Amino acid sequence: MAHKLENMLEDVPSDIDIAQAATPLPILEIAREAGIKDEELEMYGWTKAKVSLDVRERLADQKNGNYIVVTAITPTPLGEGKTTTTVGLSQALGAHLDKKVMTCIRQPSMGPTFSIKGGAAGGGYSQVIPMEEFNLHGTGDIHAISIANNVLAAAIDTRLFHEASQSDEALYRRLTPAKKGVRSFSPSMLRRLKKLGIDKTNPEDLTAEEAARFARLDIDPDTITWRRVVDCNDRMMRGITIGTGPKEKGRTRETGFDITVASEIMAILALATSLPDMRERLGRMVIGMSRSGVPVTAEDIGCAGALTVLMKDALKPTMMQTLEGTPAMIHAGPFANIAHGNSSIVADQIALKLVGEDGYVVTEAGFGADIGMEKFFNIKCRYSGLVPNAVVLVATVRALKTHGGGPKVTPGKPLDRAYTEENLELLEEGLSNLRAHIKNARMYGVPVVVAINKFHTDTDNEVEMIRKAAVEAGAVDAVMSDHWALGGLGASNLAEAVVKACEMESDFKFLYDLDLPIKEKIEIICKEMYNADGVEYSEKAEEQIASYEANGFGGLPMCMAKTHLSISHDPELKGWPTGFTVPIREIRASVGSGFLYPLLGTMSTMPGYPTRPAYYDIDIDMETGQIVGMF
Amino acid sequence: MAHKLENMLEDVPSDIDIAQAATPLPILEIAREAGIKDEELEMYGWTKAKVSLDVRERLADQKNGNYIVVTAITPTPLGEGKTTTTVGLSQALGAHLDKKVMTCIRQPSMGPTFSIKGGAAGGGYSQVIPMEEFNLHGTGDIHAISIANNVLAAAIDTRLFHEASQSDEALYRRLTPAKKGVRSFSPSMLRRLKKLGIDKTNPEDLTAEEAARFARLDIDPDTITWRRVVDCNDRMMRGITIGTGPKEKGRTRETGFDITVASEIMAILALATSLPDMRERLGRMVIGMSRSGVPVTAEDIGCAGALTVLMKDALKPTMMQTLEGTPAMIHAGPFANIAHGNSSIVADQIALKLVGEDGYVVTEAGFGADIGMEKFFNIKCRYSGLVPNAVVLVATVRALKTHGGGPKVTPGKPLDRAYTEENLELLEEGLSNLRAHIKNARMYGVPVVVAINKFHTDTDNEVEMIRKAAVEAGAVDAVMSDHWALGGLGASNLAEAVVKACEMESDFKFLYDLDLPIKEKIEIICKEMYNADGVEYSEKAEEQIASYEANGFGGLPMCMAKTHLSISHDPELKGWPTGFTVPIREIRASVGSGFLYPLLGTMSTMPGYPTRPAYYDIDIDMETGQIVGMF
Repeated sequence: MAHKLENMLEDVPSDIDIAQAATPLPILEIAREAGIKDEELEMYGWTKAKVSLDVRERLADQKNGNYIVVTAITPTPLGEGKTTTTVGLSQALGAHLDKKVMTCIRQPSMGPTFSIKGGAAGGGYSQVIPMEEFNLHGTGDIHAISIANNVLAAAIDTRLFHEASQSDEALYRRLTPAKKGVRSFSPSMLRRLKKLGIDKTNPEDLTAEEAARFARLDIDPDTITWRRVVDCNDRMMRGITIGTGPKEKGRTRETGFDITVASEIMAILALATSLPDMRERLGRMVIGMSRSGVPVTAEDIGCAGALTVLMKDALKPTMMQTLEGTPAMIHAGPFANIAHGNSSIVADQIALKLVGEDGYVVTEAGFGADIGMEKFFNIKCRYSGLVPNAVVLVATVRALKTHGGGPKVTPGKPLDRAYTEENLELLEEGLSNLRAHIKNARMYGVPVVVAINKFHTDTDNEVEMIRKAAVEAGAVDAVMSDHWALGGLGASNLAEAVVKACEMESDFKFLYDLDLPIKEKIEIICKEMYNADGVEYSEKAEEQIASYEANGFGGLPMCMAKTHLSISHDPELKGWPTGFTVPIREIRASVGSGFLYPLLGTMSTMPGYPTRPAYYDIDIDMETGQIVGMF
Repeated sequence: MAHKLENMLEDVPSDIDIAQAATPLPILEIAREAGIKDEELEMYGWTKAKVSLDVRERLADQKNGNYIVVTAITPTPLGEGKTTTTVGLSQALGAHLDKKVMTCIRQPSMGPTFSIKGGAAGGGYSQVIPMEEFNLHGTGDIHAISIANNVLAAAIDTRLFHEASQSDEALYRRLTPAKKGVRSFSPSMLRRLKKLGIDKTNPEDLTAEEAARFARLDIDPDTITWRRVVDCNDRMMRGITIGTGPKEKGRTRETGFDITVASEIMAILALATSLPDMRERLGRMVIGMSRSGVPVTAEDIGCAGALTVLMKDALKPTMMQTLEGTPAMIHAGPFANIAHGNSSIVADQIALKLVGEDGYVVTEAGFGADIGMEKFFNIKCRYSGLVPNAVVLVATVRALKTHGGGPKVTPGKPLDRAYTEENLELLEEGLSNLRAHIKNARMYGVPVVVAINKFHTDTDNEVEMIRKAAVEAGAVDAVMSDHWALGGLGASNLAEAVVKACEMESDFKFLYDLDLPIKEKIEIICKEMYNADGVEYSEKAEEQIASYEANGFGGLPMCMAKTHLSISHDPELKGWPTGFTVPIREIRASVGSGFLYPLLGTMSTMPGYPTRPAYYDIDIDMETGQIVGMF
């Protein structure tokens, strides 16, 4: 199936033009060649298919392939081409080095699709296709998350509404009504009874006190952290007052919307290792606190089973293909600040079994290595049990120059000449950022290859300066890669370097132990990864730490929510900052996902559209039936 | 493919038990046998597939099959089994009478799925399978509507937000920014220019006055009728205040959420006849008025093209199958009060071509014949150009007894003895309702067959009384049908009567001409269909009528939004009410769908969950992987 691209144009066309000019191969054939049986596949059209987790079980005795994570130096707001490199490297491994390969990347939100142009399927001659389907509905996973998230929200408000107007006795009676003369608890109710230590299974047997404890969750509305979601940029929904309708009896409440990919259910999809594991995680999600300070979960609300039913198809990764016919798994796309920013565990696990001992799985971690890679190692690999073989660190001349003090880079504005002409002084100054990330990656005991993602304005001197610095800093190699303009061919040298890195000894280790106190875990990350002098906690954060440790959440890993524009907490600090103290404003709990997330700044979980977003241009050409105006 | 059901149990199991016990045939084979080519099909798993509209074009020269609409007498709140009859009749035609047949029904909302138990896939041994997939995500059409609806909502608020803070000149500049030095209008902007009578295509050429007129929609926030949607029962979202977040500068606005199936985009999906037609309808949707009283459309907002892109896959009907292996098309599910309550035009058109001259397409119209059938004829058939051959009017002993003065029937409560024992007096009294609907259906010149949907408590005397009355009132025949307990076998006599009815002469005509004034159209419906003495208009309705006629919307058909529990506007008036005047509270415009909808009462467009909704019971059995607790 894998095939070298031909007829590439020197004047590289737009992403959508390249993607639409390609004829995707039938995904059924790609899947068969990858070793998937037809009965393990569910087609979604002819170019997308969901892959059953049964593959992993069937190949349990197969050895895993090589596991490569693509990360980056601290990027500019434009991004430095991690996904493009991930796809290009995969194309090189599969179509040029004849290796078995699989690319595992995130499904993007539709927020950016209709806002500021820029797809998430890679770019140039290194893309996942069909890119329109990749950037639109996919196989519906994000829609499933939206509705599951919002059913839970509706269920929370339903419970508040009914508890407010009913006595304990009436509430209990209505929660356990007689059907054909028989009252019964649902399975989720039996779980709640167990949590309450009530060892009874017949609703008739509970004492009035037990019935009241069971029936009244007594949620404190002011503590509810569960928000509704929508998969578009809807800034006016950031803060809303609900219940203002005439039938809602004045029971208004302040809440708001996040973009769907910020939902805890998205993080769970990425971290769940099986359907039963997903069921348990959904049940453990904490939506708020009771008036007596007890965490209230989705299980208590009674709809964790229903959420699992809504999410059961989403748990199956989606197979698509690259421009050179290598298989790609698209699965989950959690935020990289308030969540861990990595594609799913199950996709990686399936892929590693499918490619086998001599094969390669290339996955990507969001933002820079201080964020996405750290979380890949300490959260994702911890929950998956998988051991990475190599880190690919993407660097660009442009980003390194910003770290050397180059002028500010702003999306939509032309680049300064500092970036389009050779400037070795700026570059040299900025190499500290590269060194920091190489040092950080090496701490985990995994070989590092630097990929210099080529721009046509880069000069040989600039590339050579980066290469030398990278190797001196401990990288196995540093290779210029021109996959954007040349597809897999352009990444062949990079692929060879990665193959060599995977052959080296590696000795993967986590950065911290889970059983350390919360503060100690945070401090290890801040000092070791960010180079901070220390950490300061707000009063709120101190209270939250005490509460989480009291409630048994202290053993979770930390998922730092911080800017991606600096290794530090401060987006203005470029290069390899020193002499700063990290302020922790607040710490939130994502108990279902299985992490706590300290906030090091203000994180927007709902973007807005600019005055002329992409939706003005997106349409269908009725002559050809093709989408136009997208990217 | 069509096959008679075997091993039916006398003690009919639950719907989900019957559905899960059946092994669906590969939908690819069913589609091939129906005459669909592989390249016209997109698989969604192995039991669902989307069908391309190309089928209709390819078979354009083929004669249409027989077109049968299933409707009902005025139902109880429990429903009288229209879908079950539709499916059972199809199974009888296909598996027992060996006819080519296709069932065209609506996709249900997930609101009821997680609220009060009751699927929409039929019931007993007459179901569309897999019923879980039918009642959950399907092929994602409703999700596409949700996001399209909400992107438009976000775009409206984005425009309000940016217009509020920018001068005409800045607004125009930001709407037409230079890209690589060139400013350009998007296709949707060119459409707006045309509407404004500005015949220029270069942004540089507009005068300041033209630029201001183009750029400033000047929407009056109080006139915005476009609401957001979610596909679950979320009563606290009926009324909300948005924009309360700190960054939204106090620009709050009152609005609310409807359930997704109440979105105008759902009605458009059901009525669009092609992709270009859907594009035009989406563009025509009126979202509110400018301060100078001009209707503002989705086209003006600039995102009709993007909505079309989001909806392009949803326009393809989904093929599934019945328990007896006959093909079913599942497509669109608009409300039957504020919209027209019928499945899609394109599914019917494709199905009629596929079954061919000697085949049968069985579709269903929502609520009683006074609502769904009237709209089927006057709205759906008017836009499709299709001519129906027969009406099947579903009646039950239970519903007829309520019309005879039987005690109130309430969901979740046991039925009164009047309904479970023979009671010929009540029944006789209630037959007036049956007579009214037969008379109404006959008005359209189409033969009527009454289907007496059998309950095990019905007696032979009761069935015979209905039969006689139906034939006397002008029905071709009235046949007891036991498809719930026996599948197609139980509906064989009904199927034979329907085949005979289709062989009869029919002379289909609309009830009113579109070019009549709005009031006259309303009065014809109220007098002819509802038997009203007359119509009264509120002051608001009078104003709206004047405004719609002034804005060129007067030529649209009327889509009456009224109770389904009476032929009149008053749910308490049972049987065949006389001597009442219909009050028109308000008239709303669904310009994209292509109808006006007069409100004859308060229509809830957002249901709420009860204290113990179905989500408490819905879960996955981790041993078998099957869904439990659903229905």
